[in-house]
Amino acid sequence: MPEQPELTIQGWGPAAGARDATVHRGEDGADGTLEPAAFPDVAEVLPKAARRHLSRELGWTPRRTPPAPVSRIRLAPSRLAEEGRLRLVELLGEEHVRTDREERLRHAGGKSYLDLLRRREGDASDAPDAVVRPGSTEETAALLALCSEMGVVVVPFGGGTSVVGGLSGTDADDRPSISVDLGRMASVHALDVASSLVTVGPGMRGPALEEYLARHGLTLGHLPQSWEFATMGGYAATRSAGQASTGVGRFDDLVAGLTLATPSGVLELGSPPASAAGPDLLGLALGSEGALGVITEVTLRVRPRPREQQYAGWSFRTWAAGLAGLQRLARHDLLPDVVRLSDPDETRANLLNASGTGASLLRSSLRLRRRGEGCLLVVGWEGLPTTVRARRRAAASMLREAGAVRLGRRVGESWRRHRFAAPYTRDSLLDAGLLVETLETAATWTALPTVYDAVRGALRESLGRRGKQPLVMGHVSHGYPTGASLYVTVLADRDDALPIQQWLTAKRAATDALLAAGGTLTHHHAVGADHRPWLEREVGPLGVDVLRAVKQRLDPRGICNPGVLLPD
Amino acid sequence: MPEQPELTIQGWGPAAGARDATVHRGEDGADGTLEPAAFPDVAEVLPKAARRHLSRELGWTPRRTPPAPVSRIRLAPSRLAEEGRLRLVELLGEEHVRTDREERLRHAGGKSYLDLLRRREGDASDAPDAVVRPGSTEETAALLALCSEMGVVVVPFGGGTSVVGGLSGTDADDRPSISVDLGRMASVHALDVASSLVTVGPGMRGPALEEYLARHGLTLGHLPQSWEFATMGGYAATRSAGQASTGVGRFDDLVAGLTLATPSGVLELGSPPASAAGPDLLGLALGSEGALGVITEVTLRVRPRPREQQYAGWSFRTWAAGLAGLQRLARHDLLPDVVRLSDPDETRANLLNASGTGASLLRSSLRLRRRGEGCLLVVGWEGLPTTVRARRRAAASMLREAGAVRLGRRVGESWRRHRFAAPYTRDSLLDAGLLVETLETAATWTALPTVYDAVRGALRESLGRRGKQPLVMGHVSHGYPTGASLYVTVLADRDDALPIQQWLTAKRAATDALLAAGGTLTHHHAVGADHRPWLEREVGPLGVDVLRAVKQRLDPRGICNPGVLLPD
Repeated sequence: MPEQPELTIQGWGPAAGARDATVHRGEDGADGTLEPAAFPDVAEVLPKAARRHLSRELGWTPRRTPPAPVSRIRLAPSRLAEEGRLRLVELLGEEHVRTDREERLRHAGGKSYLDLLRRREGDASDAPDAVVRPGSTEETAALLALCSEMGVVVVPFGGGTSVVGGLSGTDADDRPSISVDLGRMASVHALDVASSLVTVGPGMRGPALEEYLARHGLTLGHLPQSWEFATMGGYAATRSAGQASTGVGRFDDLVAGLTLATPSGVLELGSPPASAAGPDLLGLALGSEGALGVITEVTLRVRPRPREQQYAGWSFRTWAAGLAGLQRLARHDLLPDVVRLSDPDETRANLLNASGTGASLLRSSLRLRRRGEGCLLVVGWEGLPTTVRARRRAAASMLREAGAVRLGRRVGESWRRHRFAAPYTRDSLLDAGLLVETLETAATWTALPTVYDAVRGALRESLGRRGKQPLVMGHVSHGYPTGASLYVTVLADRDDALPIQQWLTAKRAATDALLAAGGTLTHHHAVGADHRPWLEREVGPLGVDVLRAVKQRLDPRGICNPGVLLPD
Repeated sequence: MPEQPELTIQGWGPAAGARDATVHRGEDGADGTLEPAAFPDVAEVLPKAARRHLSRELGWTPRRTPPAPVSRIRLAPSRLAEEGRLRLVELLGEEHVRTDREERLRHAGGKSYLDLLRRREGDASDAPDAVVRPGSTEETAALLALCSEMGVVVVPFGGGTSVVGGLSGTDADDRPSISVDLGRMASVHALDVASSLVTVGPGMRGPALEEYLARHGLTLGHLPQSWEFATMGGYAATRSAGQASTGVGRFDDLVAGLTLATPSGVLELGSPPASAAGPDLLGLALGSEGALGVITEVTLRVRPRPREQQYAGWSFRTWAAGLAGLQRLARHDLLPDVVRLSDPDETRANLLNASGTGASLLRSSLRLRRRGEGCLLVVGWEGLPTTVRARRRAAASMLREAGAVRLGRRVGESWRRHRFAAPYTRDSLLDAGLLVETLETAATWTALPTVYDAVRGALRESLGRRGKQPLVMGHVSHGYPTGASLYVTVLADRDDALPIQQWLTAKRAATDALLAAGGTLTHHHAVGADHRPWLEREVGPLGVDVLRAVKQRLDPRGICNPGVLLPD
């Protein structure tokens, strides 16, 4: 397995290399202290035209607001009693129970805008009191039983990429907490080529798994933006979706079985290929976000590496025409494997952001066709050449009938090259005084336009103050026969006095609005701490009570990630 | 909506018309008494060659063993106290609360071999004490709360087609029980064409729904063998699969949302098109078999009626070659919408059963190619002409590489014409002294051959006595990337002294064997009363406890179909 790099503490990207925080040993030699990562200047990541556009739209003037030095991040002493630590050591070994500053900081929170604001401000109040690394299902089960007995909160840690506060929940009883890093459980346990199934540890990441599978001519094909760092256990715990999920399926669809260690014992769930033996317990473990236990093994459906991959760009004149076109593909099961329709604001931003002759040509071409900038659609087809050709042609003719024009492969390939770039850019924008965050939902084709208008309206109203306006950009990133997801990116001039309050207010308004319009609370980011006040609106009070009953049976003392998923 | 005919009491087929049981009013004019249905003689449903084949294989001599007259079926007096009945009447109205003999008999049990044996022997000890028909979600919720208060057991009744004792469970506390017939809740509530969603009452059946959808150019496409009688609520409650599920998806996949009325309140579940808002509660209601409450509304994914439908037959030399061929299609996502591979014994029986010149030609053709009878594969392709053509061609070339020869469309069309016939034939075989039953499972492609051998071995050992052998025939009826289902039909000379014991022993042996070999307890028939002793082997003791915790929260007094799903 290749090395799995850790994320840098105050932003995105690998801790090793150019973006790394430098570790300095403290004077006492015990705790490491860490210097802030140097993120590229905003001028390096955004072309001048794009910066000008943002200044004009947002009433924002670029300014330097770098994060506090990592060495000055405030971290309370570990609350784990020495007796408790020793019992953990007895179970896992000294080297797998860590309470040092660096380990605790690296496992503090996830990578949402709020997480980054806290870390940039020098606040690590959400850091665990210790970091432990079990090596097997049995060790994890024993660990959970022990923590249940000791009243120690357990927060599973995969890649640390949550953007909904999945690692930042607070325990109502304020008990000591440990981060259970699954990095030691990151190997392939079994490969069944005939059945297209691979069984892996929860800490396995996408790049390592794809490298392994490629040697057997196989792929998983799950490619969310967090792909470089996120783990299989994390995907399962949060019901992740990837950029090609329209084609290969959501992560839910890829999980054929899993093992969930709980304080009350171990559940082995799933009967591939399918079963009617009672309600789907596997579906209870998927999306359980650590609140029912720790996923210690996952069996995944893999597929042959595609022999053909074709990416292309298309342009619709309007958002409504784009949605109608996708809806038509969807009902005929002709959606591409990757489908991504940007609204006019996102299309404009993408075009301003793109550089080089390709981008200029594209802009001229759109101008020549008098389409304005319109709405950009990126499609990707993957699979066997014969079926890709047939699906692509049938879809192309429907897209043309729906008023789209083809922009060619260059646009598609360009999107593909930059598919993991956005979170890297964010750090530079934060340094320059911007609010940058995303949120997402999904709705039926019928409700989607209303949800879109409602979310945009709520964000613009909440963040528009004193002549300043946010930029709210949207795109559809996953299509289904019955509807689609909607992914929203918000940029605004940050309120440096009360930045957390500024976003919490906007997020609350947007969430209320999208739920009222018929959207789901989250399409692929999960509930975490950030969405849990709304879970009851999604599943009803009785639905929450059912989840509580399950939690009570598996985790009677409520030690499993108590700050997420379920409202207090 | 067209009339929805009821099933005849002692067998399969509509109660109205030629196969109907005749209703005679009793002398007191109060209770109806019913005469047995006249099933066709075995000579009318099986060609001579097939009968000879069966006699030879099974050591069976056709004999007349007709069912007891319906008028003589033993039925205990209703145990529902008059006070309780009056409270039900107060809630639902006099005409929707029935305790008469005919209603109680029509709602006694399902249509498994054991159900039919009991009914044919004149035993209706599993009949409900009353039959009620609520008209809405609200009425059903109020009914459940009332029954919970009164300690009355509630068994939901859709089409009455369960083959796993889903309607024949016994209550450990022996409380009075009512059958909740959902026939009044059988209309379309909403159609969202753009989102490909239809919302219906749980009592809606396939033919009525397809007729409605056809007027809008749409189809559901869920076609199990019970299609003429089974209901949407029943499909959801049992995680049904249909003959085209390989293409359109299992019923689980078609449910976008549902309403579950429980003694503790109403759950509204599902967020189309997809959500990551916590564990999947919809998946807990699917497969709940009435044990958590009553499904009172279902929202289903529909699709355009296929413009192209192509059915064809293929032949493999051996079962192993057939499985390998399907596995290869499966891993490349090239499985047809309908796929059905028969083993050598089933292929031989099908050929003997087929009559007319087409069948003779087919037999000659197979003989000419020196393939023996081999293994018959029926495939069906449905959808847009262009994509059907591409998928069909790509699959055909893989099938040829795997050693299959094409037999042409006639074989496919013939299967299609007779797709609902088997359960009708069964009654005539029962009349002639045969044991006839089916069971089913699913396993990964790797485990499937072992599961097949294990089940056949167990059944042959259990039913082979005194020189007599059962005929055990198998086919794959649903394919997945990771594995397939296995459907087994058993015929044997019935032990007329202890027929129930004969089958229970065989079923126990087969179930133990298939679970030990890695099969699932049931792929699409559900758990019911018949499989519940094995549920713990499928999901583990902790898995059963999780389901119990959910049931305890929703149904604290355990009135919801207590004899099914969960072991005592």
